[in-house]
Amino acid sequence: MTKKLFTVDFEPLGRRAQVAHGTTLLEAAHQAGVGLNAACGGAGVCGACRVRVVAGEVSPPTESEEAGFRLACQTQVLGDVRVDVPPDSITAPQRVQIEGRERPVDLDPAVRAFDVTLEPPSLSDLRADVTRLRQSPVFAGEDIKFDHGALVQLPGLLRSGDWRVRVVTDGDQVIAALPAGDSLLGLAVDIGTTKLAAYLVDLEAGETLAVAGAMNPQIAYGEDVMARIAYAMKGEAQARELQQVLVDGLGGLVDELCERADCGDSAVVVEAVLVGNTCMHHLVLGLPANSLGLAPYVPILADAYDLKARDLRLRLAPGVNVHLLPNVAGFVGADHVAMVLATGIHETDKVTLGLDIGTNTEIVLATGGVGGRLLSCSCASGPAFEGAHIRDGMRAAPGAVERVRLVGEQVEYQTIDDAPPVGICGSGILDAVAEMLRAGVLQVSGAMVGESHPRVRGSGGSAEFLLVPAGERDAPRDLAITRKDINEIQLAKAAIRAGTEVLLSEAGLEAEQIEQVVVAGAFGTYLDVGSALAIGMFPTLPQERFVQVGNAAGMGAKMALVSHHCRETAKEIARRVEYVELTAHPRFVKLYAIALMLP
Amino acid sequence: MTKKLFTVDFEPLGRRAQVAHGTTLLEAAHQAGVGLNAACGGAGVCGACRVRVVAGEVSPPTESEEAGFRLACQTQVLGDVRVDVPPDSITAPQRVQIEGRERPVDLDPAVRAFDVTLEPPSLSDLRADVTRLRQSPVFAGEDIKFDHGALVQLPGLLRSGDWRVRVVTDGDQVIAALPAGDSLLGLAVDIGTTKLAAYLVDLEAGETLAVAGAMNPQIAYGEDVMARIAYAMKGEAQARELQQVLVDGLGGLVDELCERADCGDSAVVVEAVLVGNTCMHHLVLGLPANSLGLAPYVPILADAYDLKARDLRLRLAPGVNVHLLPNVAGFVGADHVAMVLATGIHETDKVTLGLDIGTNTEIVLATGGVGGRLLSCSCASGPAFEGAHIRDGMRAAPGAVERVRLVGEQVEYQTIDDAPPVGICGSGILDAVAEMLRAGVLQVSGAMVGESHPRVRGSGGSAEFLLVPAGERDAPRDLAITRKDINEIQLAKAAIRAGTEVLLSEAGLEAEQIEQVVVAGAFGTYLDVGSALAIGMFPTLPQERFVQVGNAAGMGAKMALVSHHCRETAKEIARRVEYVELTAHPRFVKLYAIALMLP
Repeated sequence: MTKKLFTVDFEPLGRRAQVAHGTTLLEAAHQAGVGLNAACGGAGVCGACRVRVVAGEVSPPTESEEAGFRLACQTQVLGDVRVDVPPDSITAPQRVQIEGRERPVDLDPAVRAFDVTLEPPSLSDLRADVTRLRQSPVFAGEDIKFDHGALVQLPGLLRSGDWRVRVVTDGDQVIAALPAGDSLLGLAVDIGTTKLAAYLVDLEAGETLAVAGAMNPQIAYGEDVMARIAYAMKGEAQARELQQVLVDGLGGLVDELCERADCGDSAVVVEAVLVGNTCMHHLVLGLPANSLGLAPYVPILADAYDLKARDLRLRLAPGVNVHLLPNVAGFVGADHVAMVLATGIHETDKVTLGLDIGTNTEIVLATGGVGGRLLSCSCASGPAFEGAHIRDGMRAAPGAVERVRLVGEQVEYQTIDDAPPVGICGSGILDAVAEMLRAGVLQVSGAMVGESHPRVRGSGGSAEFLLVPAGERDAPRDLAITRKDINEIQLAKAAIRAGTEVLLSEAGLEAEQIEQVVVAGAFGTYLDVGSALAIGMFPTLPQERFVQVGNAAGMGAKMALVSHHCRETAKEIARRVEYVELTAHPRFVKLYAIALMLP
Repeated sequence: MTKKLFTVDFEPLGRRAQVAHGTTLLEAAHQAGVGLNAACGGAGVCGACRVRVVAGEVSPPTESEEAGFRLACQTQVLGDVRVDVPPDSITAPQRVQIEGRERPVDLDPAVRAFDVTLEPPSLSDLRADVTRLRQSPVFAGEDIKFDHGALVQLPGLLRSGDWRVRVVTDGDQVIAALPAGDSLLGLAVDIGTTKLAAYLVDLEAGETLAVAGAMNPQIAYGEDVMARIAYAMKGEAQARELQQVLVDGLGGLVDELCERADCGDSAVVVEAVLVGNTCMHHLVLGLPANSLGLAPYVPILADAYDLKARDLRLRLAPGVNVHLLPNVAGFVGADHVAMVLATGIHETDKVTLGLDIGTNTEIVLATGGVGGRLLSCSCASGPAFEGAHIRDGMRAAPGAVERVRLVGEQVEYQTIDDAPPVGICGSGILDAVAEMLRAGVLQVSGAMVGESHPRVRGSGGSAEFLLVPAGERDAPRDLAITRKDINEIQLAKAAIRAGTEVLLSEAGLEAEQIEQVVVAGAFGTYLDVGSALAIGMFPTLPQERFVQVGNAAGMGAKMALVSHHCRETAKEIARRVEYVELTAHPRFVKLYAIALMLP
């Protein structure tokens, strides 16, 4: 019997997959290159991968499935199928925070270029190419080694370039040979769970030639790290798949950067630095992530690490090293180290609190001064600030409500790109909650006060606050903030606040002693500090002590790219950081319960 | 228009290829896995790839082609074709010289094994796997690095092995993680132009667990190095193809070794050493070989070299290093260095001549004693001693006449494995020429003296000496030595002798001062020293000064495998060797002309 394949058409995207009997629609979507949301990693519980089966035979609906819709992860293909994918279920192109505050650093890249002109061989000079290079004035007396990729490239370049060549070394190893006159380009990438931000840098000029952002393609396998770990744990093939889509995504970004900078193909990039949280770090390296998914959540590798780009199947110049900054713990990764490096929190004289807010929020507290302590923790703030688990929530993409003000009985709002409102993103929800609190709509418990505002409707658990009536946005449904949404925000801000309080208590400091608060990351850049203070997400401090620094992790990656010294500093930061495990901390639960209340 | 493929059947082998219009039969044979001789690399001049087209349409014969036969390299497929391949055209399985004289060395392998037992992680001990290993008593205080392949393997082994693991290091790098208790195995290979000899060694016991030999699969692309270089120069794809078939051949040998030693698959091998002539060295590394094919014949790389087995696509344990001994010059390669190392010529007190006889014969002259000189040269002795360019010649395979004695008017001979005579191999031809000379059949010019022996027939350039009459071997044709065959032997022995004389003159020594002659290699093992002396291949010296040592290059590779010290010695040998370029030497032509004469 031959195996028959069935065709699955995804509309309105016009993508098609050929799959075997019993394949799920989610797997078919992966194959067709359709990025379906799958926050739970295909467990059938998050409902993010909703699609409509328009035609064809599929497995019968499970109990948990909504009428009219099917969950792609739970639906098996039993014949040729036509599927309609609602916009909500597609991983949306999102605003990626690429820029951040740059701190000037002295150029001191790990790679160096040497312009060499050699004598061509003759009957009276039979030296091998490599011997010729070793004995050239530039390298004489040094014991240089050759990366195999660079070695294979060298003879052709020497002969086509009239025995002039640009030799690129990393430490004592020749890692690339370039035509004479080529620039020395480096790549820095911040691998976020949701987003990738990449930078192409001229390593000799220290200049950023191009920047590019993209969604992390792993998002189709689960929105948060736990879902990805669960997927990787299914087997070696799945783990490799997660690694490969990410590496492919990085490759695409590199191509985009090189095109933007008009510098040929990716084979000209001679150095790379990657940062990410510990899970992204392990997944991109192809390290087993199992241990990050189970208590006590230990990483496989915490040290700074170098490997060859080709061992990641990442196409850069042949012998390129990829450097990964060190991790601190299972949930305090290299991106946190990079953030500290970029913001200088490790060397400030002031008592400084630093936060990188995301699904996991990493917090660092620097007690300041020489020999000052660096205390860090990670708290599971959840994806509410990224628009997930919020009924009308969405990522920070065009059409997202990002600012809300209650002016009397009016609701004023602003959307990203001034597009018609589609949903509400993190900063919009934060604003809305703060404004509702200010207007007396919310009690400390988060419950809505009936008749406190004309936009409040329903009561108790089903109360909601009407933000954008359907008519205003020419859509069949209103956008509203529900009691449950408020609760999600309370959970998120409580985690962040409780984490901060634990660090303060570990350091023996009071909140008012914090002289400076550094807020990093995409959400951190766009949030209204006043709103965040209003709902108690941060300790009560004057607003002028807050500074929003953008993608600090990406800036840290760039610093480590152009400066060997910064890599050493990053190692020192990772060594100095005292990791505080919140779940094991005696005061955490009590502080969390307190922080759940609204002020 | 779709491209139609034609079927080519190779009989009596039962192999088949599907090829496009215009493909040559030689390319079709490669594709079908039929090893056709192609000494000239497909240039249509050597005639080694003769086949008979039994049916089907092919391109018309060229002028150089023999009636009834076609040259596979010159014949294009124009339709479905059936081809008969005569046994002579198939690369024959040949006697491979594997064994050699072992010199005892102190075990000091580049890799070391450490048996480690780690504490499993707990809530009070969140250290990363790598940190745990670094801080274990075995590695504490050392700055160990991790090969990426080994790192990926480590976490799984730790968890499946109850946190006990065997860590294998090379220098400061962890290159493999093995289950506790596994042996430390190493691979040594002598890559000859014609033959591969491989050894599996227990690096801790110093014991050779298995040996295996095979033909170099590149032989299907040309018998000598020049033909291979010409093939590699056709383009990148062809160069990669040559590399790949060789690496595949090595992989097959490793599998065979592991099976013989009953030690699982090749993933248990943690170290490898390769030696070969400079061309084999470059082809296995994928280095461009162009410069070895054109004057002044400079290599790309002469130094000792380490690379990862995975960068050769050779499947051993994940982080294994492959070490290649240094080359001296374009035609004095790592195999020569290995031969010197294995025979101890570099440290002998005696004036010693060493020869590794093959298509190229490398010769070393050691003047002996502390600070003694090592002079080396390579001479193009040609493939006559491997049975090529000899009318009834063949490789040293079963049925080859390997010993000849003239007893009165009788011809006595012996064949390999006592099989019915099929052809004459190198040692048989050498014996025959020496015996004919002794019996007065040959003049100093190499011409046969008519009526000097009943077996002489014909005269002048068409004279021949009947060795085995057709009736004696139950075949349609006699085996005979022709005037032209004698000439081939004269050319070969003259090259070797002239090379020796040039080295003596460079060293300021007379031949009789040579106290010891070391003859290495397959032909060197089987040749009759008396016969070689009789025809003047070697300087006239007492036979007891000669020692035949077998595959010294392979033995040298094994020594470098088990001893880091021997690798250093090999580097020193390569540095010490004074390379003498014969073609540029003022006395070579005259000495060669003299050596052409028979004594």
